Amino acid sequence: MENALVWKRKDLLGLEELSRQELELILSTAESFKEVSTREIKKVPALRGKTVVNLFYEPSTRTRVSFEVAAKRLSADVINIASETSSVRKGETLIDTGKNIEALKVDIIVVRHNYSGAAVMLARNLRASVVNAGDGWHEHPTQALLDIFTLKEKLGKIDGLKVSIVGDIAHSRVARSNIWGLTKLGAKVTVCAPKMLIPPAIEEMGVAVTHDIDEALRHADAVNVLRMQFERDEQSAFPQQLEYFKNFGITRERLEKAKKNIIVMHPGPINRGVEISSEVADGINSVILEQVTNGIAVRMSVLFLVAQANDNIKNENTD
Amino acid sequence: MENALVWKRKDLLGLEELSRQELELILSTAESFKEVSTREIKKVPALRGKTVVNLFYEPSTRTRVSFEVAAKRLSADVINIASETSSVRKGETLIDTGKNIEALKVDIIVVRHNYSGAAVMLARNLRASVVNAGDGWHEHPTQALLDIFTLKEKLGKIDGLKVSIVGDIAHSRVARSNIWGLTKLGAKVTVCAPKMLIPPAIEEMGVAVTHDIDEALRHADAVNVLRMQFERDEQSAFPQQLEYFKNFGITRERLEKAKKNIIVMHPGPINRGVEISSEVADGINSVILEQVTNGIAVRMSVLFLVAQANDNIKNENTD
Amino acid sequence: MENALVWKRKDLLGLEELSRQELELILSTAESFKEVSTREIKKVPALRGKTVVNLFYEPSTRTRVSFEVAAKRLSADVINIASETSSVRKGETLIDTGKNIEALKVDIIVVRHNYSGAAVMLARNLRASVVNAGDGWHEHPTQALLDIFTLKEKLGKIDGLKVSIVGDIAHSRVARSNIWGLTKLGAKVTVCAPKMLIPPAIEEMGVAVTHDIDEALRHADAVNVLRMQFERDEQSAFPQQLEYFKNFGITRERLEKAKKNIIVMHPGPINRGVEISSEVADGINSVILEQVTNGIAVRMSVLFLVAQANDNIKNENTD
Repeated sequence: MENALVWKRKDLLGLEELSRQELELILSTAESFKEVSTREIKKVPALRGKTVVNLFYEPSTRTRVSFEVAAKRLSADVINIASETSSVRKGETLIDTGKNIEALKVDIIVVRHNYSGAAVMLARNLRASVVNAGDGWHEHPTQALLDIFTLKEKLGKIDGLKVSIVGDIAHSRVARSNIWGLTKLGAKVTVCAPKMLIPPAIEEMGVAVTHDIDEALRHADAVNVLRMQFERDEQSAFPQQLEYFKNFGITRERLEKAKKNIIVMHPGPINRGVEISSEVADGINSVILEQVTNGIAVRMSVLFLVAQANDNIKNENTD
Repeated sequence: MENALVWKRKDLLGLEELSRQELELILSTAESFKEVSTREIKKVPALRGKTVVNLFYEPSTRTRVSFEVAAKRLSADVINIASETSSVRKGETLIDTGKNIEALKVDIIVVRHNYSGAAVMLARNLRASVVNAGDGWHEHPTQALLDIFTLKEKLGKIDGLKVSIVGDIAHSRVARSNIWGLTKLGAKVTVCAPKMLIPPAIEEMGVAVTHDIDEALRHADAVNVLRMQFERDEQSAFPQQLEYFKNFGITRERLEKAKKNIIVMHPGPINRGVEISSEVADGINSVILEQVTNGIAVRMSVLFLVAQANDNIKNENTD
Repeated sequence: MENALVWKRKDLLGLEELSRQELELILSTAESFKEVSTREIKKVPALRGKTVVNLFYEPSTRTRVSFEVAAKRLSADVINIASETSSVRKGETLIDTGKNIEALKVDIIVVRHNYSGAAVMLARNLRASVVNAGDGWHEHPTQALLDIFTLKEKLGKIDGLKVSIVGDIAHSRVARSNIWGLTKLGAKVTVCAPKMLIPPAIEEMGVAVTHDIDEALRHADAVNVLRMQFERDEQSAFPQQLEYFKNFGITRERLEKAKKNIIVMHPGPINRGVEISSEVADGINSVILEQVTNGIAVRMSVLFLVAQANDNIKNENTD
């Protein structure tokens, strides 16, 4: 993969807007950062003296911690802001909050928000870099990038792969970002779910649709199993879970009818016995923990690229 | 401004106790730190190996984050303690908590507390430096210092300026600290609010009082607009807000009758349409976001000065 | 104390499993780290580029902050995860959480959990180092180590000392870890409490039992006073506290009948007037704040030793 391309975006908002070359540049930069986390001294000075703010309006320890570790391995200073304790409670708007954070001369704001479009809105209004850590049902680009990075690491390429995504496609930003990223890189994507969990006109994104899990698995090189979230504290949750597991759960029996080396991915945290059996989650086809490891490399790559691009923009403006 | 003066206080508790020279020393030190946040590597080693604890008994993301960024740009290690999760819940007294934190050999405790006098009480009982980040209705010295720093940056001086403070003066530590700082530096301060929000005998602090917003604005070089906090979840809040906005809200119409270059300040977070109109908050007279930026420089200055003074005290004691 | 011994454990789970030599190695390593916190630049590069995660399922500001300060003085990067905001809420099991954290290539997980055995379970399933910061009623090894370190610093040795532990022995991990550590190092331990707060068969741990506080104090070189936790928000709490203080509270009157230089310890936070009088807590026999200071040195020692051992294990495996 050649990358004469220079990254020019100050933000990473979603995979829909990226070109194939940009996707490949993130992945190849992540490859070179992956080695850092295997050293005894897991640190490079790339972002020394830069400030990264994790602005999380939804609780997500996994994603926040992954970005925090990535930023610290790049030697950045990290500030965590959780919505529970932020001035959001005092009724400040998202843009006001963003402008106030930017006024602290921070370099990157990593934002998680339940509103689709929150990251885009922030990015348009700020000179600071914005990285989307999940916005509503819209996109979760770094999750998809780490999924794709892991696939490429395992299978050597993305082009021509058959990837099935199973679960609540309609409400999944992970599914959407994966579809954009995978199809741009030449994979053939199939989504599989009960009818009510498939959004209308999903085929326009360039994917095939099935409601039959065995069909989704049959020729797949990889399956990405989404976390199912049933209502909590409801009597109906348990029978729903059983029903879902029976019809769509990824089990050893089902995998036996698939390709022998099929890759099993999951964005985590897993629900054992709901969307995936423990046997599969912990089995040899599973790359779930490797995805977590690769999340650090991918996020280091993204933080590095957007910060560098933003420095270049600022330097051009002052020239 | 000349400063042969050396800062000798281990704490910053309020502006009431400071001399004009001390105020000027903080401001001139802040000037030299302001440049740090414009560098690509926004970091100086001034407090490397020192520990700063943010001890916050009231939620305040803005102030906590500003101190955290300031401390990190000075290369200090920062520990955040929020009251929700602290051993306060277990009934430990403030002084016990302070002594326990001091026993960790920390250098500076930045404390926010709803009790007026909390910072003073801590400072008297500890050898560690204490910085008051807001105590009850008493003082919020770093907020006032950043307001004054911003004014001085914009208008070149404080001496002789006419500054109006508008809002709930009676319950505002921001107002009190501004009054002490501004009057010591030679500004003429007017406070403006409905009668019930003006504390008795406020004139003894050396300020003029008016209940007429147009009068407050007429000759002012700057207006500092305080955040209004009406009861939440109450049906009466909205009509109260409308009423307040009608009588005291800072609007374009009102500013048109003031000096053309009047400076509009606000400690944030702003309530658009309550104490200030969006037009004014985002307009050319507003320096609200510059205040946030200057907060970093002022807090770097304060953290640096108290730490240095405390090191000198310790060295004298060991000589 | 000679220590040709090299520390080989990747974890610190409890004092029950440690040899006398291992205990002495932790203590002597802590001695050499204690000096770091007295420097102007309180930092050594021992764990630079390593990542320490504080994984706290119970709120404990004191212990979390102590570990955080210790790790930062060793130059490690520290990530805090509190259960309130963690994916535990999403029903992930402890081992899954641990494996996900480990997959971030972190070096040490410091875990506080209400389940006895949590740290052991994590350690068995992870290659990362695990340090027990308190698990249920089982052990709190670093608290006992700092108690023992303080005793040794004050009295020059542990061998042959008479130490009484007073309070709710039945539900105290601090008591259990102290008993294991002190008896291994040759101290004679007496536990003292009302009958219902002494666990059955406690004598099998090699301690004497008394229900008479004066007897517990009579010949003791040191007394370790446990925090009493009565039900909150109950009308019965106050009379219970009075009753406990009358029968078991450590007061000046009681100390006057003890050895003149008896050491008074308490893991904190103290309940003044419940298990200890203010006079004693703040008096010349009390070493309570020195314990807090020593907690940093002891935790630096533990973090350093387990990280070093784990590096050695990894290097051996790759040879």
